[in-house]
Amino acid sequence: MISYNPKSWWGLIFKFHKSDTFRRLLPAMLSVALFSAGIAYADQHLLPNQLKGTTALHALLGFVISMLLVFRTNTAYERWWEGRRLWGSLTNASRNLALKLDAYLPDGHPSRRLLAELIGAYADNLKHHLRVSISVEHRPNRIAAQLFAEVARLNSKGELSGDKLLCLNPDLSAFADICGGCERIQKTPIPYSYSLFLKKFIFLYIVSMPFCFVPDFHYWTALITTLVFYVLASLELIAEEIENPFGDDANDLPTDDIAANIRIRVRELLVHGETGHRR
Amino acid sequence: MISYNPKSWWGLIFKFHKSDTFRRLLPAMLSVALFSAGIAYADQHLLPNQLKGTTALHALLGFVISMLLVFRTNTAYERWWEGRRLWGSLTNASRNLALKLDAYLPDGHPSRRLLAELIGAYADNLKHHLRVSISVEHRPNRIAAQLFAEVARLNSKGELSGDKLLCLNPDLSAFADICGGCERIQKTPIPYSYSLFLKKFIFLYIVSMPFCFVPDFHYWTALITTLVFYVLASLELIAEEIENPFGDDANDLPTDDIAANIRIRVRELLVHGETGHRR
Amino acid sequence: MISYNPKSWWGLIFKFHKSDTFRRLLPAMLSVALFSAGIAYADQHLLPNQLKGTTALHALLGFVISMLLVFRTNTAYERWWEGRRLWGSLTNASRNLALKLDAYLPDGHPSRRLLAELIGAYADNLKHHLRVSISVEHRPNRIAAQLFAEVARLNSKGELSGDKLLCLNPDLSAFADICGGCERIQKTPIPYSYSLFLKKFIFLYIVSMPFCFVPDFHYWTALITTLVFYVLASLELIAEEIENPFGDDANDLPTDDIAANIRIRVRELLVHGETGHRR
Amino acid sequence: MISYNPKSWWGLIFKFHKSDTFRRLLPAMLSVALFSAGIAYADQHLLPNQLKGTTALHALLGFVISMLLVFRTNTAYERWWEGRRLWGSLTNASRNLALKLDAYLPDGHPSRRLLAELIGAYADNLKHHLRVSISVEHRPNRIAAQLFAEVARLNSKGELSGDKLLCLNPDLSAFADICGGCERIQKTPIPYSYSLFLKKFIFLYIVSMPFCFVPDFHYWTALITTLVFYVLASLELIAEEIENPFGDDANDLPTDDIAANIRIRVRELLVHGETGHRR
Amino acid sequence: MISYNPKSWWGLIFKFHKSDTFRRLLPAMLSVALFSAGIAYADQHLLPNQLKGTTALHALLGFVISMLLVFRTNTAYERWWEGRRLWGSLTNASRNLALKLDAYLPDGHPSRRLLAELIGAYADNLKHHLRVSISVEHRPNRIAAQLFAEVARLNSKGELSGDKLLCLNPDLSAFADICGGCERIQKTPIPYSYSLFLKKFIFLYIVSMPFCFVPDFHYWTALITTLVFYVLASLELIAEEIENPFGDDANDLPTDDIAANIRIRVRELLVHGETGHRR
Repeated sequence: MISYNPKSWWGLIFKFHKSDTFRRLLPAMLSVALFSAGIAYADQHLLPNQLKGTTALHALLGFVISMLLVFRTNTAYERWWEGRRLWGSLTNASRNLALKLDAYLPDGHPSRRLLAELIGAYADNLKHHLRVSISVEHRPNRIAAQLFAEVARLNSKGELSGDKLLCLNPDLSAFADICGGCERIQKTPIPYSYSLFLKKFIFLYIVSMPFCFVPDFHYWTALITTLVFYVLASLELIAEEIENPFGDDANDLPTDDIAANIRIRVRELLVHGETGHRR
Repeated sequence: MISYNPKSWWGLIFKFHKSDTFRRLLPAMLSVALFSAGIAYADQHLLPNQLKGTTALHALLGFVISMLLVFRTNTAYERWWEGRRLWGSLTNASRNLALKLDAYLPDGHPSRRLLAELIGAYADNLKHHLRVSISVEHRPNRIAAQLFAEVARLNSKGELSGDKLLCLNPDLSAFADICGGCERIQKTPIPYSYSLFLKKFIFLYIVSMPFCFVPDFHYWTALITTLVFYVLASLELIAEEIENPFGDDANDLPTDDIAANIRIRVRELLVHGETGHRR
Repeated sequence: MISYNPKSWWGLIFKFHKSDTFRRLLPAMLSVALFSAGIAYADQHLLPNQLKGTTALHALLGFVISMLLVFRTNTAYERWWEGRRLWGSLTNASRNLALKLDAYLPDGHPSRRLLAELIGAYADNLKHHLRVSISVEHRPNRIAAQLFAEVARLNSKGELSGDKLLCLNPDLSAFADICGGCERIQKTPIPYSYSLFLKKFIFLYIVSMPFCFVPDFHYWTALITTLVFYVLASLELIAEEIENPFGDDANDLPTDDIAANIRIRVRELLVHGETGHRR
Repeated sequence: MISYNPKSWWGLIFKFHKSDTFRRLLPAMLSVALFSAGIAYADQHLLPNQLKGTTALHALLGFVISMLLVFRTNTAYERWWEGRRLWGSLTNASRNLALKLDAYLPDGHPSRRLLAELIGAYADNLKHHLRVSISVEHRPNRIAAQLFAEVARLNSKGELSGDKLLCLNPDLSAFADICGGCERIQKTPIPYSYSLFLKKFIFLYIVSMPFCFVPDFHYWTALITTLVFYVLASLELIAEEIENPFGDDANDLPTDDIAANIRIRVRELLVHGETGHRR
Repeated sequence: MISYNPKSWWGLIFKFHKSDTFRRLLPAMLSVALFSAGIAYADQHLLPNQLKGTTALHALLGFVISMLLVFRTNTAYERWWEGRRLWGSLTNASRNLALKLDAYLPDGHPSRRLLAELIGAYADNLKHHLRVSISVEHRPNRIAAQLFAEVARLNSKGELSGDKLLCLNPDLSAFADICGGCERIQKTPIPYSYSLFLKKFIFLYIVSMPFCFVPDFHYWTALITTLVFYVLASLELIAEEIENPFGDDANDLPTDDIAANIRIRVRELLVHGETGHRR
């Protein structure tokens, strides 16, 4: 994820970052412009007066296509935000687990270091697990199993009362829920026929545009079509990019940072000396 | 569900998969085109100057129909996504149950295999239960009853403390909640009069279109009407297809894969030898 | 609720069910058509050239009125769906309660039959409670009180441990939450001034339409106005019908079936012999 | 809150209740009409041909302003509905508490009456608390403290087991959550600059309208502008009225009735003789 | 946050507060007006008849840009409201903790004052933590650790039963969840390419406007462009301002007041004498 100042207008208008849709769409925009100019040339010099100019069709469909794409972007944004929310919950669950274990286990207890390692490792492994598409073994599950086992061992040895086991239960359960939530987002793109339809619709909309606009706007059509194409295709591109937020594209979530941060904070609470001063 | 690469534009634009609305609507689109061309012919040769061309009516209603259909698609998508979410929760509940039972029951405990079987069977049976419309007995309920009974038996034999019973409770309760959620989606289509109205509205909109457009656009009307029909009917078709996501259509959820995956992961945790190495 | 096949297009387009808005609006549509035709007649024969034709006003307001009505329908749909969700939760809570009680109480325990009766009776009585507007006593509350009392009695007699009481607690609490949720939907229509405004707006929009359209469209105005009226009024009618889903209209929820189903499934789990075979 | 029949169309169209936006906006509508007529007069008699008529600007901005206001109304409606939902949860929590205490405490137990009084008093005091803007002491907090204290006292005296304390915990915690939720809605209007902008935008939109419409529509402009103003201002007014639902305006929530109802139902369960018969 | 009366129309229309977008956009609006006037001058005097006037392009794109910006504002508003909701939960968790500790610890217990201090300090430190961008140590975590430690100490000394520990658990866990939620909102702006695209789109839309409008509207174009720019840029500005609600801008949440309020109410419940009278 790129850190940026959302309030710097000029910076953002004239910056052409590699994840900027303007830069990525440039080749396609040139093709659209050439195609439109070709139609305009044909209309004026090769087959004059064969077309009937109208903006009515594109006004009518413009409404549907805009709504569809805005909704598409919003659905993708919700997936992105849900991904962010899940990683936020991972931070929270790790933190609550560390806070509670710190309070329940005496200073210097030998399990502190192991538990801190396991909590930190869960975030790291989940991050890797979501980046590779196929994995032989489910590493996050394995670490979760070790966490559960260690906590159950402390309980059966009498070092953690049953009530404390219950206090830890929601935070321990959260790990598998978060992992499942991320896998769900990662493995489920929007329905196939929806995706097919959207791309076909954008294509038909843009390709038919010069035929309807050329009689009225001549060579200006190239500019208009290109601008409209830029807007519609950008929306679809942005949606595609953010709907799966666990890779390492520019818009993807900073899972590296979050995982590192979890490791640090958990170690701070469970292992480092400062816990001693605190009380 | 079909796995596909949502970023391949050309592939998706020129692929006519059997679940593609373009392919499915083709016969209807031809009828609409012929009908429009017929009106255009009648207007020019049989009854000239009887119609008054205007795009105002369809612009006005075009707005409502677009919004309705986009909202319809989104509502259907939310049902689809809720279905996906429920199956995600099934994975999570199964995994948490397996993780906890693995931690609570000693290695080699005879109940491990039975419990792993039951958890795996729940997902399988829920999948079948959602595909057949009428079933004499409620198999998922039966399996859940066996799960609850086995856990209660372990508790009464003293092999699972009351606190551990409480730790397992939310995951066990989740099974019936998920099953109920899926049944709700499967058995409840959108309200009858809403569905009636939408189809009537699309029909009236498309049928009235040539009468209003023919005076201005002559034979081009056939193209315009067909394109508009393609867009509106596609939205309704997609909504119909995804609003009930538990069949085995191209857009339906991969419940087969999810169920198989649950079975594997649960067995991995509760039965296979590797649990031994882990600690 | 009417069971129907949402994929049968022709069936739905040409079916005029009694809950179909087309059928219900027919008298009003005829009045609108006559009124418009009257204005058209007056404009041509009685007071010619007094009106100035324009579609601008209705295009401008057409946008607001469409959005308002589509949002209105969606809000009503959300209430309907929340009602459905609450009855789904009732099924889940009843089922979980039955599953747990079946696991906790030995086969043949005398309380099994009573508890099954009470759970089944809750759904039945809630259904009746939501249909009558005023009731002297709150029957669902009474049944819930008996359920809680019976469970507490088993606990105090030592037949149900404290931990099991806690396991049953969320499901028992769910009953009153569901009942309260349904009462909230049933007793709270959308805010009064919102409802007033919407109906006034539709009225003004339709009544002013012929005055603006007659100079351009003459007698065609009657058709246009009627079609627009059909669409707008249908949306409001559908919203009115589905926003309170607990009656016995065609679009209302199948609470009869759900309640009967709960009774059957609960009895199956808690009373019938098959529970014996299962283990 | 006003009880009304949402299905009576004529009644609602021709009723001019004091909370009706038509009645409340009448003076402003007259001013807008006069202002527009004044511009029309000036355009025809004082400074002819100075203005250039166009509907393009208002069509363009009409879209944004409509969407903004419809979203505004929906956001306000969601606050209103969240308020209703919170008071519904208060009913549910009170009811569940009464049901559980009734089951846990023997008939005739001296704490029954006190607890029923406290639960009923909480709703009453919350209602008052939300109506006065500044209060010296936080009465709902005080009553909640007494409730918690009484329950803890019963626990420490051994009349309420620890497990039962845990069963009551979610319902007791709900009180402060509900109170906090209501305070949040009551004390937080929509962001200041959003509110400033919306009112400025409506003002600019309406004031600029006659200048653009007078060349084409002359005196009809007064009617058009007034109608558009009525619609836009109504939406804003309705949003203002329902976004803070805890006063005693016509659209506000029936907190008096809900609080009275809670008191009755709780007393019925915990105090009145009928509980005796029940078992 | 600024307290204001949302119902005072004139006050808000003619108030130009420093957070008002009208005031903040004034310089940019003047530039846009001058730029448009320059194009109008060039079109009339320097290069006449080079441009082809049309409103079609901006009508088409006007729809997308409006929807995008309204959705943008709503997404930002949801973040703002989620922030408010999180701080509301902080109030609730603090209050519930205080209510329960007050009920569980005898009057005058030495831990009362310490616990009240810690709960109050959490809110204060969270407020500071969210305002500074980088902090060496995580102070809210530290205070939460002390809270957990003190409660665990009371439990291990036998002054707080295991059941009571469980009753306090959800409220104690809430602290880290709330902190994590606020950090998530604060650290995650909307996706970079979305932000880039929106600003580029507004820029292209406004800059292209005079070229399309000048042939028809001449110098009036300056007014139209400026008004449209004011509306579009205001929406983006408001969204930017409210999407990160934890600073001390005019629209930011009143975290100072909320934190002070928490401190007072908690002290009132746990420390001050009045608790004595209460029972």
